Amino acid sequence: MKLTKDWICGFVEGEGTFCVSITQTLTKKEGSKQVRLYFKVTQHKKNIQVLYALKAFFGVGLVKSQTKDDSVWEFSISRFEHLDKIIIPFFVANTLHTSKKFDFLRFRKVALLMNRGEHLTEDGLAMIEKIRHRMNTTVCIIEEE
Amino acid sequence: MKLTKDWICGFVEGEGTFCVSITQTLTKKEGSKQVRLYFKVTQHKKNIQVLYALKAFFGVGLVKSQTKDDSVWEFSISRFEHLDKIIIPFFVANTLHTSKKFDFLRFRKVALLMNRGEHLTEDGLAMIEKIRHRMNTTVCIIEEE
Repeated sequence: MKLTKDWICGFVEGEGTFCVSITQTLTKKEGSKQVRLYFKVTQHKKNIQVLYALKAFFGVGLVKSQTKDDSVWEFSISRFEHLDKIIIPFFVANTLHTSKKFDFLRFRKVALLMNRGEHLTEDGLAMIEKIRHRMNTTVCIIEEE
Repeated sequence: MKLTKDWICGFVEGEGTFCVSITQTLTKKEGSKQVRLYFKVTQHKKNIQVLYALKAFFGVGLVKSQTKDDSVWEFSISRFEHLDKIIIPFFVANTLHTSKKFDFLRFRKVALLMNRGEHLTEDGLAMIEKIRHRMNTTVCIIEEE
């Protein structure tokens, strides 16, 4: 199965999620928060081959089960470097047409702030929390790639 | 907004529905059934411009509200001639990659049977009911274009 850039954009409009996760860290000092970015495409297991085709297209990411009964799977990328160097440039070059575009632009804005280290400051974190609040968020459980 | 064929395919994988509807007709003799085909793409109203772009691309169909509160809209085609001459040839030429493809192939098979008038025979209708049973159907409320 060979996917094209336009097909991927159309598919991600409906099936993709750009997520900003802000979690309380247990390992660092009390009260500190960790910002993580996460991109995923979710499918029923009967379409798992599409998730592997996305992984092959981008050359990064994981395909993993999202549910205990293995009925729902996802192709996901949480490594910042891969998001910053591969996923974000892809969706800058290949425009989304639905409101998913605005989620992507907010996701990209957080990545720019993280690149400048602003997520480690109080002001930067407050700004990221504001941006995240305006996104169509779903609960993201982030595992390492 | 200019949509490409590949983008439309990717979008329809997640957001499109190929539907075969079998209804009891009130106007014809008791017990007779009517077979209707229906293709739709559903979106939140915030993405209504994409539905109008689909209508412009195919040159047929309707954009209409699906809910009383106008929060969900659809681009839909129910006129057999438009499905037979425009939508089906489009998805024959532009392959779907997910299980939506199998729904489309069943939808196309019913269209072929209808073209031969087999939906008006008992055997043909039984065959169409079997095909429909294997599809991922949603409830379809069909209005005239």
